[in-house]
Amino acid sequence: MIIMMDQNASESDVDRVVDRIRAHGFQAHIHRGAETLAVGVIGDTRGIGVNGFRSMRGVLAVTPIMKPYKMASRKFRPEGTVVNVGGVEIGGEEIVVIAGPCAIESEEQLMAVAKEVKAAGAKILRGSAFKPRTSPYDFQGLGEEGLRMMRKVRQATGLLVETEVMDTRDVEMVAGYVDMLRVGARNMQNFDLLKEIGKTDKPVILKRGMSATIKELMLAAEYMMKEGNHNIVLCERGIRTFETATRSTLDIGAVPVLREETHLPVIVDPSHAAGNRNYVGALAKAAVAAGSDGLLIEVHHEPEKALCDGPQALLPAQFAELMQQLREISRAVGRKL
Amino acid sequence: MIIMMDQNASESDVDRVVDRIRAHGFQAHIHRGAETLAVGVIGDTRGIGVNGFRSMRGVLAVTPIMKPYKMASRKFRPEGTVVNVGGVEIGGEEIVVIAGPCAIESEEQLMAVAKEVKAAGAKILRGSAFKPRTSPYDFQGLGEEGLRMMRKVRQATGLLVETEVMDTRDVEMVAGYVDMLRVGARNMQNFDLLKEIGKTDKPVILKRGMSATIKELMLAAEYMMKEGNHNIVLCERGIRTFETATRSTLDIGAVPVLREETHLPVIVDPSHAAGNRNYVGALAKAAVAAGSDGLLIEVHHEPEKALCDGPQALLPAQFAELMQQLREISRAVGRKL
Amino acid sequence: MIIMMDQNASESDVDRVVDRIRAHGFQAHIHRGAETLAVGVIGDTRGIGVNGFRSMRGVLAVTPIMKPYKMASRKFRPEGTVVNVGGVEIGGEEIVVIAGPCAIESEEQLMAVAKEVKAAGAKILRGSAFKPRTSPYDFQGLGEEGLRMMRKVRQATGLLVETEVMDTRDVEMVAGYVDMLRVGARNMQNFDLLKEIGKTDKPVILKRGMSATIKELMLAAEYMMKEGNHNIVLCERGIRTFETATRSTLDIGAVPVLREETHLPVIVDPSHAAGNRNYVGALAKAAVAAGSDGLLIEVHHEPEKALCDGPQALLPAQFAELMQQLREISRAVGRKL
Amino acid sequence: MIIMMDQNASESDVDRVVDRIRAHGFQAHIHRGAETLAVGVIGDTRGIGVNGFRSMRGVLAVTPIMKPYKMASRKFRPEGTVVNVGGVEIGGEEIVVIAGPCAIESEEQLMAVAKEVKAAGAKILRGSAFKPRTSPYDFQGLGEEGLRMMRKVRQATGLLVETEVMDTRDVEMVAGYVDMLRVGARNMQNFDLLKEIGKTDKPVILKRGMSATIKELMLAAEYMMKEGNHNIVLCERGIRTFETATRSTLDIGAVPVLREETHLPVIVDPSHAAGNRNYVGALAKAAVAAGSDGLLIEVHHEPEKALCDGPQALLPAQFAELMQQLREISRAVGRKL
Repeated sequence: MIIMMDQNASESDVDRVVDRIRAHGFQAHIHRGAETLAVGVIGDTRGIGVNGFRSMRGVLAVTPIMKPYKMASRKFRPEGTVVNVGGVEIGGEEIVVIAGPCAIESEEQLMAVAKEVKAAGAKILRGSAFKPRTSPYDFQGLGEEGLRMMRKVRQATGLLVETEVMDTRDVEMVAGYVDMLRVGARNMQNFDLLKEIGKTDKPVILKRGMSATIKELMLAAEYMMKEGNHNIVLCERGIRTFETATRSTLDIGAVPVLREETHLPVIVDPSHAAGNRNYVGALAKAAVAAGSDGLLIEVHHEPEKALCDGPQALLPAQFAELMQQLREISRAVGRKL
Repeated sequence: MIIMMDQNASESDVDRVVDRIRAHGFQAHIHRGAETLAVGVIGDTRGIGVNGFRSMRGVLAVTPIMKPYKMASRKFRPEGTVVNVGGVEIGGEEIVVIAGPCAIESEEQLMAVAKEVKAAGAKILRGSAFKPRTSPYDFQGLGEEGLRMMRKVRQATGLLVETEVMDTRDVEMVAGYVDMLRVGARNMQNFDLLKEIGKTDKPVILKRGMSATIKELMLAAEYMMKEGNHNIVLCERGIRTFETATRSTLDIGAVPVLREETHLPVIVDPSHAAGNRNYVGALAKAAVAAGSDGLLIEVHHEPEKALCDGPQALLPAQFAELMQQLREISRAVGRKL
Repeated sequence: MIIMMDQNASESDVDRVVDRIRAHGFQAHIHRGAETLAVGVIGDTRGIGVNGFRSMRGVLAVTPIMKPYKMASRKFRPEGTVVNVGGVEIGGEEIVVIAGPCAIESEEQLMAVAKEVKAAGAKILRGSAFKPRTSPYDFQGLGEEGLRMMRKVRQATGLLVETEVMDTRDVEMVAGYVDMLRVGARNMQNFDLLKEIGKTDKPVILKRGMSATIKELMLAAEYMMKEGNHNIVLCERGIRTFETATRSTLDIGAVPVLREETHLPVIVDPSHAAGNRNYVGALAKAAVAAGSDGLLIEVHHEPEKALCDGPQALLPAQFAELMQQLREISRAVGRKL
Repeated sequence: MIIMMDQNASESDVDRVVDRIRAHGFQAHIHRGAETLAVGVIGDTRGIGVNGFRSMRGVLAVTPIMKPYKMASRKFRPEGTVVNVGGVEIGGEEIVVIAGPCAIESEEQLMAVAKEVKAAGAKILRGSAFKPRTSPYDFQGLGEEGLRMMRKVRQATGLLVETEVMDTRDVEMVAGYVDMLRVGARNMQNFDLLKEIGKTDKPVILKRGMSATIKELMLAAEYMMKEGNHNIVLCERGIRTFETATRSTLDIGAVPVLREETHLPVIVDPSHAAGNRNYVGALAKAAVAAGSDGLLIEVHHEPEKALCDGPQALLPAQFAELMQQLREISRAVGRKL
C-alpha cells in the first residue's frame, strides 16, 4: 500500500500515519518527493482497508498494491480451473455452447428449442423460469412450474440444463431442478444471494453486471468461493456505455484480461450484448477467437411470439449455421467444438 | 407505438404487422415515407410489448410513444406526493436532512453521531446494519445487533431512524426496528426485494443504481407501487461514468427531470457521489438549489476509525456549518430547512 | 513515481529498473511487499514519462505521484486567477453571466436577443459564427459575415462579445472581432488550435470535451498557458454517459474539484448539458450554489425558428426570471450578480 | 419523422405543427393515442431539422425515421466499397494489416520496425510525425522531418506508408509524403480538418472518437464524402467507458453494425484499445473473426525506449507470431491474409 501525503503535511500528520501503520503490524517506509511525500507499507495489507488512511489529515491518496481478490486470482490456481457440469467440462480444451430460449414459456416451446440446439451441438440448455424484468408489467416467468417443464425436457433430450436464480429463498429449490445455476447481471452484487449460492456446490454462471468492473466481477466470485463453492464460470455479457447501436457494449477485452487475472473459466453471452440477432454471430465468433471457453446463446423457434427478448434470439437454422462457423474458428485457435 | 419498416418490406410483411396489431385490438395507420414505412398503433399499448414486433420480418425499429410507468408518473398524481415518516414530511415545503454514519459500528458511535446531527437540524438518523460491500473481506455490518443499537439511540434521542435492507428474508424483521427502509443502489433492480417491500407500507428510500437510467429508477418504484406501497422517496446518488475525480458522477439533472416526470419526492445523497468530504458541501448545496426535497448525508465523529466510507463522512462541525449554508440556499429557492 | 513490480521479477529485472531511474538522475527506493515489490522514485518526474517503465520486464504498474499539470495547478497561483474581459472580471466576487443565441443567424436576431439579455443583467453576449455540427447537412454558421454582425451589435449595445473559433487558420481573424474566444467541446484536444490561441493574449473559454476527464481539461489549459496565454476560463458543459433524459450529464462535481485543483475561473453551461429549456434553470442554480464563477446560457427570442439548438434556448422572459432567482442564490453563497 | 405531442396540446398547438410541416412541403398524418398524439411527416425530412419542431408548444419528442447520413449509408453502394491504396485493396477479400511504431522517432527506428513488419506480412507502414498528446510536456512528434524519414523508408522497403494529419494547414504537405492519411480519434469531429481532407482524393483512415457514436463516425465520413473524397476506411479503436482494465473498451459490436450500415471498409486498432501488449493479440483475432477488413497494429523493436505508447507495442517476434494466428482466423472466416 502506498500512501501519498501532501508536501505541506506536518511532522505530526506523518507520525500519525506511521503510527497507524505500525499499529496494524506493518513496516512504513517514507519517500520525500518534490511535491509529495509517499509512505510505503510493506506486508499483506488486504485486511486493513484503505479508507482509514484516506481519512487522515495530510493524506492525498492511498493506492493498494495488492489485488483485492485472493481465491479468484490466477495465482491461487495457476493451471486454471475446469468446472464440471454433469460430465461437461467448461475451461478445458472444448468450447462449450449453452443455448436455448430467454424464458421458459411452455413445455412445447422448450422442447422444440431444446431438440434444435442439441442437434446443432449445444451441450447445455438455457431457459429462465424467474425473469428480472425492468417493468413490473412485463412477463415475470413461470416460476417453479417452468422448472418442472425444464426437468421433463432434460429427461426427454438428455441435455443438461441451467437457469437463473434471483431470490435467496429460492436457491435450494432451484438447485434441485437444474445442473447449473445462473446469477443474472442485475444480481451480480446481490451479496446475500452470492453467499447463499456459495453454500451449495452447484456449478454457477456468474454474469457481469452492466456497470461492474472486471475487478468487481472477480470479487463477486470471491464471495461465493469464500463460502466454499469454487465451481464458478464467469460470463461477459456487455456493459452499459453511451453507444446504443447494440443493446450493450460487449467488452471483448475482458476475455484476455480475465484469462490473465483469474483461473476461473470465462464464457461470453453475445445475445444480450447484441440485442439484435443480426450481430450475434459476429460477437460469438469474436468471443471464441479472443479465448472464451464457451458461449451462452439465445435461440427461439418462433421469436415473434417470444415473451422475452425475441429480437436477439437466433432461429434454429441460424444457430446451426453459426455452430459450423464456430467450429472453424475453434480449430483456428487450437480448441474443439 | 410507431413501427418503422424497411421500404423494401413486402406487402405480406406489412400485412402481418397490421394483422398482429389488430389481433391485439388496436388500429393501425400506415405512413409511406421516402425510405421507410411507418405503422402507427393507436391505443394504450403498454401491455403488449415491443419485442414481438421488433422480431418481425421487415421491421427496423419500434418506438413506444407512451411512458412505461403508470403509477410513478407525474400524471398519476399531478399535485405531488408527500411521504410522511413518523410526522416528518418529505416532499413538502421543508427540506428534510437525513444524516448519520455509513455503518452502525457500536452503540457509542451511533449515539455520538446522532446527538450531533440532531443538534444541527437533521430529522432522521441514517445508519446501516447490513452493508453491501464490494469485497467479502470488508466489514459486512453488525446485522440485527446493529438494529437493536439503533432502536436504543432512537429512544434516547427522539430521532427517527432509517436503514438499508438487502435480503427478502429480512424485510419484516428490519421494518420492525426502523421508521424508514432504504434500498441501496446495488439492489435497485433486485425485483424480489422490491416486491417484498412493496407489500409493507413502510416509507422507503429507493436509491438509483449506479448505471440505472432515470426511467429504470421510476420502473423500480413502480414495482413497489404495484404491490401497494406508495410511500417512496427517490434518491439520486451519482452514476458510474469515466470520470474518477469524484467517486460517482452526481447526475444533478436527474432532479429537474424527476420533478417533471414523477410525483414522488426526490432527495440527493452527495456523500456517495463525492466520495470525498471536500466536495460534499458543494454537491449538497447544488442539490437544494436544483429542487431536491431532501438530502442523505454521511457524518462521522471519528472518520479515521470508520469501518466504512470514512473519507466521505463530514465531521460534526462541518455538518453543522453546512446546515447553516443550506438554510440560506433553501430560503433562496423558497423552501425551509 | 511508484513502480510496482511482480514478486517474481528477477534481480536483473529490478536492477534494470533501478538503473533507468538513476540514468534519469533520480534516486530509487525499494520496498518488498508480500506479493509485490515497489520501487519509489524521488524527484520531479513529470518530464520522464511513465510508459518507458511500464514497458519493462517485471513491471506491473507505474503510478505518478505528481499532478501532470504545472501552470494550471492551484499551487501555481494559490490566490486564484481573475480573468479580465474588457473590464468584466471572471473569477472575482461577481457571478458573470454570458448569454445569447447558439448561432448568429442575422443581425436582427442577434440584436433582438442582445437587448434582452443585457436588460436582464448579462455582461457578455454569446453567439457562434462557426458551428461544429454533427451532420454536414446542418447549418454551418455565417462565418466572418456573422462576426461583422456581432461587431455591429457590440457597438450598438455596449455588450462585450464572445464566439467560437474552430480552425487554426481563423484564430487571428476571429480574435480581431471579439472580446473573448471560445474553444468548443469537440476541439478541447485540438492541440494545434490550443497552441495557436495560446500565442494570443485573448481571454478564452475552454469547454470541457464530452468525454474528457477533469485532468485532461486542465492539461488542455496547460497547452495554452505554456504558449503564454493565462487568460483562461474553464467551462463544465456536461459529459457523455448512458443517461439520455438530458442531452449530456452535467458533472456538477467538477466545480468543487476544479476549484480545489486549479486557480483558473470555472463557469458552467447549463444549456448544452440540459438540451431542454425546462431543465436549464435548475442546472444554472445548482452551478452557482456549487461555486461556479459564471454561466454560459443560450437565449433565443424565437426558438422555433432557431437554426441550431432551439429546444434548449430560454425565452427572454424565462431568462430574466432566472436571473432574479440566480441573484438570490448568489447572495446565499456570498457572491453577487 | 414522427412528432409526439402532449395529449393536452390545444387544437391551435396541433395546427401550428401541421402548418409548419406543410410549409416545408410535406404531408402530415395525425394519430390520436391514449395518452399522446403523434403527427407523422411523410417525405425526405433530412434537410429540415428536428429542433424547430422540438421547440414548439405541445411537442414532447421528435423522432427522425430516416438515417441522417446519405453517401455513407450502405444503401448508397450496396455492393461495398474497396479503397485502393497504391495497389493494396482494403475492403476486398484480403485482410490488410497496417503496422509500425506509434511515433516516428528516428530513421533507424522506423527502418528497423518497417523491415520486421514487412517480413511478417504487413502491407502498409504506420508512423506518426505529428502526435496529439494529452500533456504539452510529452513528445509532440518530429513534424515534417519525420515525414522525410518516412519517405526514405518507403523507398528503401517498398512498403506503402500512412500517417496522421492534425492541422488544416498541413493537409496538402502531409499528403505529399504518404500513401494514406489518418484522422486521429481526437480529431474525428474537427470538421474543418475533415472538409480539407475531403477536398483531396487521398485514401484516409478515419478513427472513431473516444466518445463518438457509430452514427457520428458515419457522419464524420459523410463530411469528407460531401467534399468529394470517398476513399475512406473507418477504424474502431475503443471507446471510453468506466472500465480501466484496458486503456479503452474495444466496441467489437461496431464491426457488424458498420458492415450493415455502411459500404465503407472497416478496420480495427487493437493496440490503442488494449493499451497493453498482453491483450493486443486477443483483440486482433476477435476483430478478424467479427468481420473486420484489416488491422492497425503498433510494433516497436525497443518498446522500453519508445517515446510514445511503448506498453502497447508488440515486439517484432510477437507480431510475426500473431500474423500466423491471424492467417488461421482469416481462413476460418473465408478471408485471406
